[in-house]
Amino acid sequence: MATKKYVYYFGPDGADGSASMKNLLGGKGANIAEMCNLGIPVPAGFTISTEACVEYFSSGGKWPKGMADEVKKNLARLEKAMGKKFGDPSNPLLVSVRSGSRASMPGMMDTVLNLGLNDATIGGLIEKAGADRFAWDSYRRFITMFSDVVLNVERVKFERILDKRKEEAGVMADTGLGVDHLKKLVAEFKELVVKETGNPFPQDPAEQMNMSINAVFGSWHNKRAIEYRRLYNLPESWGTAVNIQAMVFGNMGENSGTGVAFTRDPSTGDRRFFGEFLFNAQGEDVVAGIRTPLSIEQMGDRIPQAKADLDRIYQKLEKHYRDMLDIEFTVENGKLYMLQNRVGKRTAEAAVRIAVEMAGERLITKEEAVMRVFPEQLDQLLHETIDPKAKLEVLSKGLPASPGAGVGRVVFTAEEAIEMAAKGEKVILVRQETSPEDIGGMNAAQGILTATGGMTSHAAVVARGMGKCCVAGAAAIKISEHAGLFTVGSVAVHRGDWITLDGSTGRVILGKAPLVKPTLSEDYKTLMKWADTFRKLKVRTNADTPHDAKTARGFGAEGIGLCRTEHMFFEGDRIISVREMILADTVEARHKALAKLLPMQKSDFIGIFEAMDGLPVTIRLLDPPLHEFLPKEEGDFAVLAKDLGLSMVDLKHRANSLHEFNPMLGHRGCRLGITFPEIYDMQTRAIFEAACDLGKRGMKVSPEIMIPLVAHVKELKILRERVKEVGEQVMEETGVKLKYTIGTMIELPRAAITADQIAPEADFFSFGTNDLTQTTFGLSRDDSGRFLPHYVIVGILPEDPFVSIDRDGVGAMIRLGVAKGRSVKPQLKVGICGEHGGDPSSVEFCHEVGFDYVSCSPYRVPIARLAAAQAAIKEAIEKKKSAKAPAKASAKPVAKKAAKKAVAQKPVVKKAVKANGKAKKGKR
Amino acid sequence: MATKKYVYYFGPDGADGSASMKNLLGGKGANIAEMCNLGIPVPAGFTISTEACVEYFSSGGKWPKGMADEVKKNLARLEKAMGKKFGDPSNPLLVSVRSGSRASMPGMMDTVLNLGLNDATIGGLIEKAGADRFAWDSYRRFITMFSDVVLNVERVKFERILDKRKEEAGVMADTGLGVDHLKKLVAEFKELVVKETGNPFPQDPAEQMNMSINAVFGSWHNKRAIEYRRLYNLPESWGTAVNIQAMVFGNMGENSGTGVAFTRDPSTGDRRFFGEFLFNAQGEDVVAGIRTPLSIEQMGDRIPQAKADLDRIYQKLEKHYRDMLDIEFTVENGKLYMLQNRVGKRTAEAAVRIAVEMAGERLITKEEAVMRVFPEQLDQLLHETIDPKAKLEVLSKGLPASPGAGVGRVVFTAEEAIEMAAKGEKVILVRQETSPEDIGGMNAAQGILTATGGMTSHAAVVARGMGKCCVAGAAAIKISEHAGLFTVGSVAVHRGDWITLDGSTGRVILGKAPLVKPTLSEDYKTLMKWADTFRKLKVRTNADTPHDAKTARGFGAEGIGLCRTEHMFFEGDRIISVREMILADTVEARHKALAKLLPMQKSDFIGIFEAMDGLPVTIRLLDPPLHEFLPKEEGDFAVLAKDLGLSMVDLKHRANSLHEFNPMLGHRGCRLGITFPEIYDMQTRAIFEAACDLGKRGMKVSPEIMIPLVAHVKELKILRERVKEVGEQVMEETGVKLKYTIGTMIELPRAAITADQIAPEADFFSFGTNDLTQTTFGLSRDDSGRFLPHYVIVGILPEDPFVSIDRDGVGAMIRLGVAKGRSVKPQLKVGICGEHGGDPSSVEFCHEVGFDYVSCSPYRVPIARLAAAQAAIKEAIEKKKSAKAPAKASAKPVAKKAAKKAVAQKPVVKKAVKANGKAKKGKR
Repeated sequence: MATKKYVYYFGPDGADGSASMKNLLGGKGANIAEMCNLGIPVPAGFTISTEACVEYFSSGGKWPKGMADEVKKNLARLEKAMGKKFGDPSNPLLVSVRSGSRASMPGMMDTVLNLGLNDATIGGLIEKAGADRFAWDSYRRFITMFSDVVLNVERVKFERILDKRKEEAGVMADTGLGVDHLKKLVAEFKELVVKETGNPFPQDPAEQMNMSINAVFGSWHNKRAIEYRRLYNLPESWGTAVNIQAMVFGNMGENSGTGVAFTRDPSTGDRRFFGEFLFNAQGEDVVAGIRTPLSIEQMGDRIPQAKADLDRIYQKLEKHYRDMLDIEFTVENGKLYMLQNRVGKRTAEAAVRIAVEMAGERLITKEEAVMRVFPEQLDQLLHETIDPKAKLEVLSKGLPASPGAGVGRVVFTAEEAIEMAAKGEKVILVRQETSPEDIGGMNAAQGILTATGGMTSHAAVVARGMGKCCVAGAAAIKISEHAGLFTVGSVAVHRGDWITLDGSTGRVILGKAPLVKPTLSEDYKTLMKWADTFRKLKVRTNADTPHDAKTARGFGAEGIGLCRTEHMFFEGDRIISVREMILADTVEARHKALAKLLPMQKSDFIGIFEAMDGLPVTIRLLDPPLHEFLPKEEGDFAVLAKDLGLSMVDLKHRANSLHEFNPMLGHRGCRLGITFPEIYDMQTRAIFEAACDLGKRGMKVSPEIMIPLVAHVKELKILRERVKEVGEQVMEETGVKLKYTIGTMIELPRAAITADQIAPEADFFSFGTNDLTQTTFGLSRDDSGRFLPHYVIVGILPEDPFVSIDRDGVGAMIRLGVAKGRSVKPQLKVGICGEHGGDPSSVEFCHEVGFDYVSCSPYRVPIARLAAAQAAIKEAIEKKKSAKAPAKASAKPVAKKAAKKAVAQKPVVKKAVKANGKAKKGKR
Repeated sequence: MATKKYVYYFGPDGADGSASMKNLLGGKGANIAEMCNLGIPVPAGFTISTEACVEYFSSGGKWPKGMADEVKKNLARLEKAMGKKFGDPSNPLLVSVRSGSRASMPGMMDTVLNLGLNDATIGGLIEKAGADRFAWDSYRRFITMFSDVVLNVERVKFERILDKRKEEAGVMADTGLGVDHLKKLVAEFKELVVKETGNPFPQDPAEQMNMSINAVFGSWHNKRAIEYRRLYNLPESWGTAVNIQAMVFGNMGENSGTGVAFTRDPSTGDRRFFGEFLFNAQGEDVVAGIRTPLSIEQMGDRIPQAKADLDRIYQKLEKHYRDMLDIEFTVENGKLYMLQNRVGKRTAEAAVRIAVEMAGERLITKEEAVMRVFPEQLDQLLHETIDPKAKLEVLSKGLPASPGAGVGRVVFTAEEAIEMAAKGEKVILVRQETSPEDIGGMNAAQGILTATGGMTSHAAVVARGMGKCCVAGAAAIKISEHAGLFTVGSVAVHRGDWITLDGSTGRVILGKAPLVKPTLSEDYKTLMKWADTFRKLKVRTNADTPHDAKTARGFGAEGIGLCRTEHMFFEGDRIISVREMILADTVEARHKALAKLLPMQKSDFIGIFEAMDGLPVTIRLLDPPLHEFLPKEEGDFAVLAKDLGLSMVDLKHRANSLHEFNPMLGHRGCRLGITFPEIYDMQTRAIFEAACDLGKRGMKVSPEIMIPLVAHVKELKILRERVKEVGEQVMEETGVKLKYTIGTMIELPRAAITADQIAPEADFFSFGTNDLTQTTFGLSRDDSGRFLPHYVIVGILPEDPFVSIDRDGVGAMIRLGVAKGRSVKPQLKVGICGEHGGDPSSVEFCHEVGFDYVSCSPYRVPIARLAAAQAAIKEAIEKKKSAKAPAKASAKPVAKKAAKKAVAQKPVVKKAVKANGKAKKGKR
């Protein structure tokens, strides 16, 4: 039997791997291999597979059998390809050791550069590079990185020494240090290692490599990686690959440099090569945002050949990958080397434009175009920007790193951001520069402001991914985290002060600027039109007012899936009549108060019906417990007592009698309808009178009346009869004949598990997934703050079940409800009206389960439309695959494998979507 | 095709029906037919089937086709048998028209006696009976009854005229009125009918009969019948049969009379004929309790032949029916006629004794004996009686109508009883005599006291059925409902005063008498021993203290199914340490407080393990939200602040931060264990240290540790690991090796629906049906008072789902959980520890679903044991039946029908059990 292959070579003479082997080689390794296959210049090297990593962990930290041999063999091949020898004092091969998992996890895991340097090989490097200072700088960097990543010596300890020496030398930048300084630093660094670890810094390059491989494997379990996986919902089981690659040096002089670029503009989607370049620098200098880079065009000024090669290569790559790419490259003495390519992150605007334009260029199909935009991203397009007419007090300007606008109170740490956001405060996170540790805080903030760093700095990349606005590199800002303020000139902005960021222009504005709704691009409209042709799910909206209804129609809502009648109860002075009704101590008194409410509710419904102009409108009868309508303040009680002609004592007594221990599980929903039928009667009458009035005027209105919180079919049966009775009566009175339906919410486990009993009495089911999640989990959303975040952090739950449907539990309950309901009524209309209706993953679930529609808040309608289209396209792809599979009987295992792979790859896209979702939802 | 038969004849010349035809003929009709078949003298007649009634309703009030003809034909046969003619002025046949449904519904539906009398036939009656007064008295009774039942003229209007005439005549009793008075009354009554209905009193006997039949059909839907069906959970679909039977007259003179008897003593079970007799009276006089009757022995003094016949017949009947019977009979001029027989209601003591003795007599099998006692009835045997050593202020004495003792506040109406009981007050219902309208109030009361009526009066019969104590016919008591008091001589007892009833002796005692536990009879022990041999379910107890544990072991508990550790937290001054622990603001402070609690919890567990002496003990780790342990009173807060060295402001602030909107769904159960692992660690350590200590002393203790409120398998996984870790550590420390298991409660819908994921981490499942009911229904038990009773009254729910498992909803969830759990772990131990574990119907369900054990409160252990035995026996019977069925292939349809019938008959028994259950539970 052939032994397993753990190591995959790549180089100018070809590659063992390819882009299709992401699971095995990680994204970076697979894409490097692909570039080699395409004949694109890449420093040679080899990738140790994720399988090796998984086996390393499962065996308790031992390399799989044969791997050591393979490493040796591949190293030899690499040496041959590079014409250098690893550990050779005269012509040493130096390598980088980098992690690379299936999904991009920027900055989450560890990297060691310049590996192979030691007291002997440095001589060779000096000789070959002809650059003393460069060699010694590389050595001190290598010791720092290796000690940090492999030996667990804190980086800050090296930096402290460095700072001290810089001070002594009287220089500001590292580059100010000369060869002697650097030599001395290397000696000091080595002493530090002995002091910290008890052992000398390892001089054997083979030992260095083996230790680094193990450290990269180990980095899969470091805190940042775990946190990142949690946030982006990536499985621990994947493991990481390790890429070992010959070093090329962008810091070898003025004909060298390093850059990062996108094949199209990641902010606008404009079809232009877009990137940044730093001469005489290594990659980390660009990404960390310490030096402000040049534009990519400026690279051509000094090294035109490399720039021309780059242009040719990026076009070739984009055509090959059929997507906008994010590439990294280094120029060593004028020669271009590609280091990495991956699908580029982009703003929503860019995603839409690139997708539509690439379809126009026939690079991709319309289906692919629709699949290319993460639904959650659309949120960026729909949400506010700063009112152009507003008078603004612009404090400063930075780079427009991630579009949109954000208003919030200033905080200076991720912890503060999380804490205040948890209390419902809007915050802007202000940092010198951000690091992976800040992700949680960025997630919680409305926007991010950094003092240093460019368009591709950590803050910028992450913010764009999250769909947060970000202003980066606002250099005029001086931050004193300790003092709790930042200053711009003589202006001081303190912790807790309001500021506004304009991520589209880079402006930093004092105070709360007024925001306005965006206008939607033609590309957006095109994409959504395509999406609508693919999707099977109808998309409705949850809207309680004509205004919301109109907004949602503008976003493409095809009806109202949930109109909450109780929200109307709070409007204007009708709350007085509502309270009168609630506190009535006789049926007569209640009738009297209800009679006052009737015309008000009727006019509400007329407004909503008019706004929806004949589209279906599902109206839920009163749901919350009555005590929710009582005053909270003493003063309001006094007013109410006067209004009702009651003494305060009497009033308080009546109000107290409505108190509930667990209002969520109390006297609400249809239980009110059963015990106070006159309330539902009034609402029903208002609905029918409104619809009949409009009917007389020639508008076709088809109300769908929805009974909430049904646990037992008999509740529905009784209320259905009653609604019918009142409805028929109104129709007789007005002489208008309406089509109407009566359905129920399925929001209690009992309703789901007895759905076959309930279905005969229901024209439709609407899953109320908020309450269904609460009852299925036995979890009060209002009280879950003390443990639910912890649950998500420690991984008990993959994510907040109120954001994305918990498929195993609540989802299973929904499947049961749909199956049971349709078992007795196959054509039963089924929808969802919980907040999950606007969550892409949940929309996909609804599609899978065979819902007829989803309903969500107006601003999430486009997201739901796109998510629904993607779910349908995915399903069609899967179907095609499984239809193909049985056709070729002999090829079955292969086809199966392919299908499996497709599924395995999916999560990468999906998780990213989710991550966005989480990011956006955190702040609402 | 033969037309359907709707009318069934019975008489001395045989019967069309038999005892097996209860569903079709009703209980009364079927038993009368059976008596005819046995050659026992019964007034001839015929029964109109329940099917006819059902079709009457479904056709909107028309008799089924052919029924009128059948009535005519059977009437002719009856006339022939009796030698009289219906409507014949010279020799008239008079009949009674009575309802009779499948289940006994005493007094719930309507009866008309003496039907066939009119202005012409009265002459024939006078002539044939030779008794003027008797005939006129019969006529005025007939007019009253017919007008009340058929014509809807209020009975009280006739009574008012009667009272006026009695006053004029200066007589107290009806019997004081002479023929002239009665003649005049008849005339006046007829006038009243014209005045009230606009029509003369119907003179045509055929019309009288048809109207009465319709009225009896209609009575199935009267208020009392509906209420009764609701209370006893009988289906509306049954309908009632109508029995038309030749009249015999117990009121024809001093050789006539009427009686009611039991074939054995219904109070004690003593094997002696036990009954009451009234000379010259009709049945209603006995049942209504208006005249105080003679003992059955005294009947022989005057009419020895009839008595001898009766003795022979009752013995024959008991042997034939193999059960204690309740019989009604009339003697007309010395000749005995049996009117009715049915299985007699009995006290628990009697039920047990009769069952065991009949098995001893080889009349029934041991299985049948076990089936004969309603499990809920046992409660009567287990509960308190008055302490014999107590000094009592005995106010009066009545008949010992239903055993047991009751203490409560005096109320005079059923409404008051219900209202006060709903507020948690114990009440004694004091009535002149009770009527079916009072059932709700009797149900709510601790006991019933009546001023008139005998051992077979309404109050006595119903109270025995409910297992309530009852003192009847306490004639010294003068009730003034209006004044809100009753007097005995010069002593006045007011509404709200405390009294005590001794239903076993008939004593009425002033104030609250001390009650003591009962001792259990040998018959009881025998029956329970038999039950234990049949049952498959183990029975455990819910016990939190050594005392409860011992009590439950005394009742036969085979282990503890639920030991709630939090109850221990309230004991003595340990609540201070608990509060310290809760309000700790650092982990260290919490550890410190927990360290104080550890030895206390340990000693608790030692006590419980010792009490259970090696039997399994399931200990649930802390479940309730922490704020439950905080003080409720301001004063306690001050003490606590001092104890903790905190300011009141600080303390209140911390306490407030623990407030929850929906504590039921809040930070509790394993969520506490996850977020404050040190609490569960302490509890685990206490359990293991206790068990190991006892292990050292040679006792085998096998703790079962139970994790509450698990929603997701990962919660259990994490906590299981932690428990194991602490446990193993203690065992290592002590050197004692224990067997222990770790399981979980299934009390959230999510746990049930993901039970296949949870089972691999659980050694056992214990269904917490209280919480599972709350979450499945979305119903807070504490808040359900405003709608749940109404739900039961209007029939949305057949009964309170917290009393008896809601099989369709919660039950389905349980089935799902068991099936899913056992699908991955076939040997998974499954039990229940909600309060349903002591409810017979729920125990039956647990048996059906394949549970290993039920666990209930100590006093319900015997009930659960018996219910478990009955469930097993029922299952065996069903299995035998279905095993027989497929054997004879040709007889299949018949066998199926038989099986169906058996099932259909079952509810009668089951419902009665439930009714008892309801009655008892209502007051706890």
